[in-house]
Amino acid sequence: MSAFRLVGTDGAARAGVVSTVHGPVETPVFMPVGTQASVKALSSADLEALGARIILGNTYHLALRPGADLIREQGGLHRFMAWPRAILTDSGGFQVFSLRERRTLDEDGVTFRSHLDGSAHRLTPERAMQIQADLGSDIAMAFDECPPSGAPDAELDGAMARTTRWAARSLAAQRSPGQLRFGIVQGGVDLKRRRAHLAEIAGLGFDGLALGGLGVGEPPEVMHGVVAAVTPQMPAAAPRYLMGVGTPRDILAGIAAGIDMFDCVMPTRNARNGQLFVPGGRLNIANARHRRDARPVDEGCTCECCASYSRSYLAHLFHARELLYYRLATIHNLRHYLDLARGARAAILEGRFTAYCADTLDADLNA
Amino acid sequence: MSAFRLVGTDGAARAGVVSTVHGPVETPVFMPVGTQASVKALSSADLEALGARIILGNTYHLALRPGADLIREQGGLHRFMAWPRAILTDSGGFQVFSLRERRTLDEDGVTFRSHLDGSAHRLTPERAMQIQADLGSDIAMAFDECPPSGAPDAELDGAMARTTRWAARSLAAQRSPGQLRFGIVQGGVDLKRRRAHLAEIAGLGFDGLALGGLGVGEPPEVMHGVVAAVTPQMPAAAPRYLMGVGTPRDILAGIAAGIDMFDCVMPTRNARNGQLFVPGGRLNIANARHRRDARPVDEGCTCECCASYSRSYLAHLFHARELLYYRLATIHNLRHYLDLARGARAAILEGRFTAYCADTLDADLNA
Repeated sequence: MSAFRLVGTDGAARAGVVSTVHGPVETPVFMPVGTQASVKALSSADLEALGARIILGNTYHLALRPGADLIREQGGLHRFMAWPRAILTDSGGFQVFSLRERRTLDEDGVTFRSHLDGSAHRLTPERAMQIQADLGSDIAMAFDECPPSGAPDAELDGAMARTTRWAARSLAAQRSPGQLRFGIVQGGVDLKRRRAHLAEIAGLGFDGLALGGLGVGEPPEVMHGVVAAVTPQMPAAAPRYLMGVGTPRDILAGIAAGIDMFDCVMPTRNARNGQLFVPGGRLNIANARHRRDARPVDEGCTCECCASYSRSYLAHLFHARELLYYRLATIHNLRHYLDLARGARAAILEGRFTAYCADTLDADLNA
Repeated sequence: MSAFRLVGTDGAARAGVVSTVHGPVETPVFMPVGTQASVKALSSADLEALGARIILGNTYHLALRPGADLIREQGGLHRFMAWPRAILTDSGGFQVFSLRERRTLDEDGVTFRSHLDGSAHRLTPERAMQIQADLGSDIAMAFDECPPSGAPDAELDGAMARTTRWAARSLAAQRSPGQLRFGIVQGGVDLKRRRAHLAEIAGLGFDGLALGGLGVGEPPEVMHGVVAAVTPQMPAAAPRYLMGVGTPRDILAGIAAGIDMFDCVMPTRNARNGQLFVPGGRLNIANARHRRDARPVDEGCTCECCASYSRSYLAHLFHARELLYYRLATIHNLRHYLDLARGARAAILEGRFTAYCADTLDADLNA
């Protein structure tokens, strides 16, 4: 049985449903990032109230603390964090390859030192999948090699080939009952490489495919171009996931190209730094003009933050470093992102996705 | 009309109702501390879910940031923090007198330097009441002089006399519509002084009376002795408030003596430091034995923290410094304190308060 059901298209944009052990996920969908078994500042009840249907957990972080064995003993990640809906876990590849000076690569895997205490650890495709099986996520990502933005051609080619070999090993490894496995397409911003690698990974039999190694420093226009060119060539019968991307504009560009799933720390991280998403762009709550503004962050938003609290109050909480600020700001920004994807889905099903994008992007340009 | 209605007694312990502009408050009651227009880590919906009926705000902190004028312009403290139930504000006296090296006292008031930026400010009885009127609290506290624990007799006597003069000025100052005013009884741990000052303050016509300057470093037994001796001599027709106290044991001792209202940062501050209140005493979530404990913090508790999350998960959040920890721990500890006072009220009304105390204190001794 396929994990994906297509329910509508509008141009290249798609509306669908991903079936997981922990319920269906309507797409396009934004997945809040819960790095350390917590979407920062939010409880599972908060996520439920936001209408989140799938969140992301980080294999690298969870394996280091509290440890995959502990989470398995505690009944898996869902039970540990009291989240009854779907979870996608990454493979740790992206984090491990970000530890430039702290890791050594060989054909079998990567040895690295923890950013927490410097202790030595090792990830291989089998170990990354074992950890994800221990966590019990609904969707496990294959262990891949992520070359840095602007890597030389030889490094790109080597990373693609190794990622393909590791993808096959990831598929052969253990998984938890009903766990879906997604492969990751690398290839930088070179279309020929992207397409070649897509063909390799698409042939392995994954339940879904992801574009990795994008949104890592290249100009947005370049990234949009790669996504627009490559996504329509990804298998239509499987979910398509653009990893770690991005701004609302990036997400609409991805949806327009046929991407179904997104994750990014931007809404949660920006919230904590004072940047709040509004239809006209973003506002910086630290700005003096908000100090006496009795309006909510977004007058059209019905999240708990906007329903009850003023910009003036949020500005006070932010300046006073009150813990409540982080939760309210995170709730608002995630609501903005979740609504963006939900609005796109509704627009696709009603054949007005182009207008939806134009309205949203115009607002963004006016910010 | 009296602000207080007595609905039952059990020995010296009382059950009553304080009537405020923002609704009735059943006593004995614990008031969560919302220093900077926020009970740390909690939203107003969280406080509502906990069943809080009155919270405390700090005049000193709010006057410095964001400023009483700003809060008044934003519709008052209730609207600013979206809390529709009762608020008691202190007068700032306790905080100002804690700034030992940063303040100078004269008969008219106190000049002090802000702990935030060193800027110069002044509080007088009239200014403290004006700020509380601007905040629009339901209960305003008179501006008092708080001598340090163990102050010499001459300093105690001077502080008592000045507190009486300032109390009269506080009562003559402006208030917001329907705002109740409570006087503060000083006198250290000397019963003769306490009783003399009580007689002075009780004669001024306040809506309620508070015992100040206790729980400031003296041994608990000494404090309990003062409270037990003085409280029964406080006017029975008005609410009685023991300021800034204390442990669950202190609160039960206060209730046994006839105190109606309590506030303390202990449940909220201890939560953030890892100390969680349980019937058997407290547990330190940082302790290694909780790392793999699948039980909730308190198996008899139905708060959001205990209903959904394990000690193991909380220990992980605490070690990882995840923001969610602070909210869940605060919810649990406040629930423990609110339930303690609610349980005492029920026990008083059923004539079993002594047994309630014994059960609770026995559990505490076994911790």
